[in-house]
Amino acid sequence: MTELTIGDIGEFGVIEAIRAIAPSARNGDDAAVLTQTTPNARFVTSTDMLVEGRHFRLDWSTPQQVGAKAAVQNFADIESMGARPTAMLFAISAPLHTPVSVVTGIAEGLWQEGKQCPAELVGGDMVSGDSLVISISAMGELGGLGRPLLRSAARAGDTVIASGRIGYSAAGLALLQHCGSPARVPSEFAQLVAAHCTPEFEYRRGATARATGVRSLTDNSDGLVVDLRAIAQASRVTLEVDSSAIAPDELQIAAGEYLGIDPWEWVLTGGEDHTLIGSTPGEPPTGFRAIGTVSKEKFDSVLIDGKPPARDAGWVSF
Amino acid sequence: MTELTIGDIGEFGVIEAIRAIAPSARNGDDAAVLTQTTPNARFVTSTDMLVEGRHFRLDWSTPQQVGAKAAVQNFADIESMGARPTAMLFAISAPLHTPVSVVTGIAEGLWQEGKQCPAELVGGDMVSGDSLVISISAMGELGGLGRPLLRSAARAGDTVIASGRIGYSAAGLALLQHCGSPARVPSEFAQLVAAHCTPEFEYRRGATARATGVRSLTDNSDGLVVDLRAIAQASRVTLEVDSSAIAPDELQIAAGEYLGIDPWEWVLTGGEDHTLIGSTPGEPPTGFRAIGTVSKEKFDSVLIDGKPPARDAGWVSF
Repeated sequence: MTELTIGDIGEFGVIEAIRAIAPSARNGDDAAVLTQTTPNARFVTSTDMLVEGRHFRLDWSTPQQVGAKAAVQNFADIESMGARPTAMLFAISAPLHTPVSVVTGIAEGLWQEGKQCPAELVGGDMVSGDSLVISISAMGELGGLGRPLLRSAARAGDTVIASGRIGYSAAGLALLQHCGSPARVPSEFAQLVAAHCTPEFEYRRGATARATGVRSLTDNSDGLVVDLRAIAQASRVTLEVDSSAIAPDELQIAAGEYLGIDPWEWVLTGGEDHTLIGSTPGEPPTGFRAIGTVSKEKFDSVLIDGKPPARDAGWVSF
Repeated sequence: MTELTIGDIGEFGVIEAIRAIAPSARNGDDAAVLTQTTPNARFVTSTDMLVEGRHFRLDWSTPQQVGAKAAVQNFADIESMGARPTAMLFAISAPLHTPVSVVTGIAEGLWQEGKQCPAELVGGDMVSGDSLVISISAMGELGGLGRPLLRSAARAGDTVIASGRIGYSAAGLALLQHCGSPARVPSEFAQLVAAHCTPEFEYRRGATARATGVRSLTDNSDGLVVDLRAIAQASRVTLEVDSSAIAPDELQIAAGEYLGIDPWEWVLTGGEDHTLIGSTPGEPPTGFRAIGTVSKEKFDSVLIDGKPPARDAGWVSF
């Protein structure tokens, strides 16, 4: 039996299928209207584009995982400002022979991930094209009168903090590249593969951080050193990280041994974990741990145990 | 001399070039923070994706025109809600051999069009991929406590209104398809070609409409009959349009004679004009004209001079 394609059911058929999966009273007119839920709220927005073969592979990830990952990476940007994700837009270009289940699966992944915030799928666009390209825009709400959590706000004396795993996504990617498919990766490493296909993200950590006085925050999307350095440069400070606080765990060490790769590479340069990282003048808030201190030792740089990192490249989209 | 490509200067080089063209204090952190400028404002958002070869051709349009058109079609959706565009996000996937000037030209078109609102380019994403795909998300502000202008709000007795030209974009497309390039289109039709490459849009018409009591509003993006029928169906009414109020003008008639095409086809099915169309219980607001009346004659339909339209297809993305 041949699978139904988006060419078979057409643009409006696909849109109807997506709206059935992710119903929203805000979806369906020319644009979505979002009402604020907190006084003096500001609106926060960000966008990311994912290209098949470059940012995801459908033989490595299910469409649901692709959708969830696209949502996570956008919501992490909203959370990094100390804001709460509330909505998303989903635009997709796909060849006519694309199975309907791929598009609806991606929508389901978006919706499932959105439920955790909760953030609704409030609009989108569906077009045909030679490549499968997804574009998500996320919206969030920054309540109250306080500042957003900018990269430029770290100060000497702050504690460097992190919430979430570091280098898990890169380890999963290395396993997939070596083994060729998720099924061929030894089952003991399943958690690393899962972290690559859809990173785990604990929502509300960004708003918690803002509420408890955290000063600067970003997410580990391009690579730990690259993302920490973005804070260092924007704030004109040095982030001094303790290697013991970010060291690969047993699972990463085992995967490194299996592949013959130093797992520090994943920790320092991996990216795509969407771990929240930043700095605070006080104790790390619930869910965050201390990984170092902020100093004025040397401007614009990151030091690990007082020395320049052994590896400092990051993942780039080109 | 070979032209500089985006592969030559890399992701961050391209992003720097775009930010130099469209500087914004809101751009550069994980997400953009938008402060509201009116009390009780709600946030309005919409997205559109454009694929090279499908939605634009770089031998027919300059990159600046492509950017401006992408902005217009998004801002028209914001204006159609009675809101004011305030910001946009710009995501682009492009092959590494793409000249830098194509990407910066698109950004310049976005910025130039945005200046008219004024709406800032507050963020984006740049990735490499096999096709040139642009995704714009527009944001706007709906001030005060009144309702947005929904398609579902037309009532029997309303006057059907329109602001802007109808069937100009489709006439320009037909000329380009026939003649092969803008340079080969007879100069007397330059205005039609220009309308296809970047439709003219008069900003603040949407907010004016809302302030003066207009009930329903949308934009002519898919085709006049299709877009009017969307109002008729959502509102469970009939839109009765006078043919004399939408008839092709002299320029369209001349182009129709030149091509051997009935210009009514462009008026009824063309789309992409982004003319604002809707209904109001009172007089048409400044900048709008009456084109018919709303009745309960028959649910969910559009009539031209009391009869079903001779043509009622619309442009679809598939």
